[in-house]
Amino acid sequence: MAVKVTPRSEDYARWYTEIVQKADLADYAPVRGCMVIKPYGYALWENIKEGLDRRFKATGHANAYFPLFIPMSFLEKEAEHVEGFSPELAVVTVGGGKQLEEPLAVRPTSETIIGHMYAKWIQSYRDLPVLINQWANVIRWEMRTRLFLRTTEFLWQEGHTAHATAEEAMEETLLILDLYAELATEDAAMPVIKGRKSESEKFAGAVTSYTIEAMMGDRRALQAGTSHFLGQNFARAFDIQFLDENNELQYVWTTSWGMSTRMVGGVVMVHGDDQGLILPPRLAPIQVVVVPIWRDEEQKEAVLKAAAQVRAALEPEVRLKVDDREGLSPGWKFNDWEMRGVPLRIEIGPKDVEQGQVVLARRDRPGREGKTTVPVTGLAEAVRNMLDTLQADLYRRAEAFLKEHTAYPEDFEGLREAAADGFAYAWWCGSAECEAKVKEETSATIRCIPLDQGPGKGRCIVCGEEAAERAVFGRAY
Amino acid sequence: MAVKVTPRSEDYARWYTEIVQKADLADYAPVRGCMVIKPYGYALWENIKEGLDRRFKATGHANAYFPLFIPMSFLEKEAEHVEGFSPELAVVTVGGGKQLEEPLAVRPTSETIIGHMYAKWIQSYRDLPVLINQWANVIRWEMRTRLFLRTTEFLWQEGHTAHATAEEAMEETLLILDLYAELATEDAAMPVIKGRKSESEKFAGAVTSYTIEAMMGDRRALQAGTSHFLGQNFARAFDIQFLDENNELQYVWTTSWGMSTRMVGGVVMVHGDDQGLILPPRLAPIQVVVVPIWRDEEQKEAVLKAAAQVRAALEPEVRLKVDDREGLSPGWKFNDWEMRGVPLRIEIGPKDVEQGQVVLARRDRPGREGKTTVPVTGLAEAVRNMLDTLQADLYRRAEAFLKEHTAYPEDFEGLREAAADGFAYAWWCGSAECEAKVKEETSATIRCIPLDQGPGKGRCIVCGEEAAERAVFGRAY
Repeated sequence: MAVKVTPRSEDYARWYTEIVQKADLADYAPVRGCMVIKPYGYALWENIKEGLDRRFKATGHANAYFPLFIPMSFLEKEAEHVEGFSPELAVVTVGGGKQLEEPLAVRPTSETIIGHMYAKWIQSYRDLPVLINQWANVIRWEMRTRLFLRTTEFLWQEGHTAHATAEEAMEETLLILDLYAELATEDAAMPVIKGRKSESEKFAGAVTSYTIEAMMGDRRALQAGTSHFLGQNFARAFDIQFLDENNELQYVWTTSWGMSTRMVGGVVMVHGDDQGLILPPRLAPIQVVVVPIWRDEEQKEAVLKAAAQVRAALEPEVRLKVDDREGLSPGWKFNDWEMRGVPLRIEIGPKDVEQGQVVLARRDRPGREGKTTVPVTGLAEAVRNMLDTLQADLYRRAEAFLKEHTAYPEDFEGLREAAADGFAYAWWCGSAECEAKVKEETSATIRCIPLDQGPGKGRCIVCGEEAAERAVFGRAY
Repeated sequence: MAVKVTPRSEDYARWYTEIVQKADLADYAPVRGCMVIKPYGYALWENIKEGLDRRFKATGHANAYFPLFIPMSFLEKEAEHVEGFSPELAVVTVGGGKQLEEPLAVRPTSETIIGHMYAKWIQSYRDLPVLINQWANVIRWEMRTRLFLRTTEFLWQEGHTAHATAEEAMEETLLILDLYAELATEDAAMPVIKGRKSESEKFAGAVTSYTIEAMMGDRRALQAGTSHFLGQNFARAFDIQFLDENNELQYVWTTSWGMSTRMVGGVVMVHGDDQGLILPPRLAPIQVVVVPIWRDEEQKEAVLKAAAQVRAALEPEVRLKVDDREGLSPGWKFNDWEMRGVPLRIEIGPKDVEQGQVVLARRDRPGREGKTTVPVTGLAEAVRNMLDTLQADLYRRAEAFLKEHTAYPEDFEGLREAAADGFAYAWWCGSAECEAKVKEETSATIRCIPLDQGPGKGRCIVCGEEAAERAVFGRAY
């Protein structure tokens, strides 16, 4: 019997935790709040990485690497920053057998140590902009952890840029937000809402934080990537100054932005069904699994030969695996690969070999409906097309789900109901009090003030005062 | 004036430290013994990574990720291992504002925590082999540090595999040694000696350690990659057992292997000259720099147009940069890119545009001798060929240098002289006493017992007793 997973429709939270482990994405580590990313989960992350790295490089960014350890005094230089991160720090107090004079924080994020280096590197307007990204591990001592979504250690990229003007820094902040949205929609088939964070939810030390927010399968929101306009806060704290074209000393304007292994959890939660994962083809470590079906040795030889031909026709463009394991029935293999979310299965039986055909089975449409018989001639094109269609269909399905669970309530009662069911777009006056009241009474928070506001003005759904902007409310991970 | 670097021939150590910083490979960090890898240095590391990752995946390995923090009790489970690494540990004692019950070591290497997970994952012979690699940062509290060569934090890959038999584990250990040697020779143009470490130099916890050793430009040895046969040491310490085909419980056999950012330092030290870096084309972040030369606006327009055509003809196969910076003379640019080690320069002046040609200048042959005028037609092929030739020539030059400074002394006095000049192959009886005596009196150590032994037997160069093997002696980084 194949591995059993709690159906998604029955207990979503349990389904998530089980499927992440049973599909070999990750495992709990023997260190509090940490996880082990297993090869299948890491391959998914590698594809996300590759998608981001390519986009960063195409827009002029370069990778670099800064130290893991940050002197405590650095963190203290930016007041809001230290207040935000202090409670979450892991601190090294012993090195090489000796008590350290100054304890070292294990980086929770790297604005401070990078700010220190930028102060040294940046002298003149000719040194700007600095467009650097770092792939790294970070540590945040979290109280309640969940595989991929919230772990004490996680992997991410953190971009840190410095610019001569506020406008240029803001442009960068929004460019990155676009790249994150592109990765989410194009690669992860995950529709997102681009928006600004409220003051209470912004990054510690930022002037303005931007976010992409996605709706998971349980209608909760996931903050999937953030891009921060830091103004001159860190430039002042770390004295990052440059001589401008008029030979006057100015502080630079900085940004920072990050996307993490949390995105792997997002991919799992957006797609998936009762049978397990459904991975979008662009990110799937294995896009196509070939299951040869035989009863006797003669059949075996024929179908394995056909499987090898299919492999030759599809590789290396398609990430493919031939499951020729012995002693496991085809049905067991079907279930196993369905659970692991492989987008497309190719079945090859003796009859198929005879007739020069194979059966394609789509993961997103289990059963007869998702099966097509196609001739071996022209298979590569058929597979490519089907993967593209599947990718687009996954996006459309997620988008329809998002729309279905998005409401536009006009009073507080409506907001309460809407936020319990998904996302609610509502007018908000901008006050922290009204924001807090919603959180208290509905457990929903402002996920973002969407960039796409639509026309008009309204009245705050909480206090009734004039409101210039709509906010998106939802319960968040 | 271009940046001045201390000539390599004058003061090698100073040249190294200066060129690493001036060529923007790395900078000192404000944390003891740590460095910042700048974009140019990181791009070099990315190319090394890519070369290794491709080879690992082609031989069946997959990447995964294990926690940064290791409970102290884990390290203590393997006696030699803890003895070797204890003095170098950084220890986290505070997390989330509280004193931790059990302090956490920041990983110096991951055999222990990975061993713990393997014990959980491996049940049966069907689960073997496990072939996992991790790209990660590690911390070793070093007393004397040097950019890239020895830093408190460094980046590396660490492979960890588990096998059903000793033979298979040994095969894996040597396969990886071959991949390391391939990366070094083919990509880094760095000749290496493959060999076994002596008992005193082996990895803490290994049964046998293998190494690739290279000769740097100052005739010192650099250990550039190591592959360890761990026997059942870690399997016993972490209880990694499996049911074999006869349903009997057995301990697995494990290996571990690593190559680090130290390799970047190796590339710098093997090649390079008085003018600065010379990067092998396969690893160079920028393989070709195009320097357009103009005096007036009319010429400028023509040469920039030609430069754009050259770019179009060469990208994306060739990693190329057009240096169209204003206000810097062509001579300054030549020096700057020579200092940074770009293998090939393309000069385009107004006369070249008229005659449909460009000038190619090889970094490894400064001056007239390295310049060739080639027609724009067929440029891509000419450039590809020249990069290949240059790569091969760099290897040949390093190989000739290695041979020139390798001796086969027959008595202790000869060993002393030979080890002061480079590498010495000499018979060794295998005793720790003789090994120690050489170290004490010559400051040379046994770099390895080379796999390629040649025929015969001899007498130990120290004690005169019968010796079955030759060792390579040299002063090491």
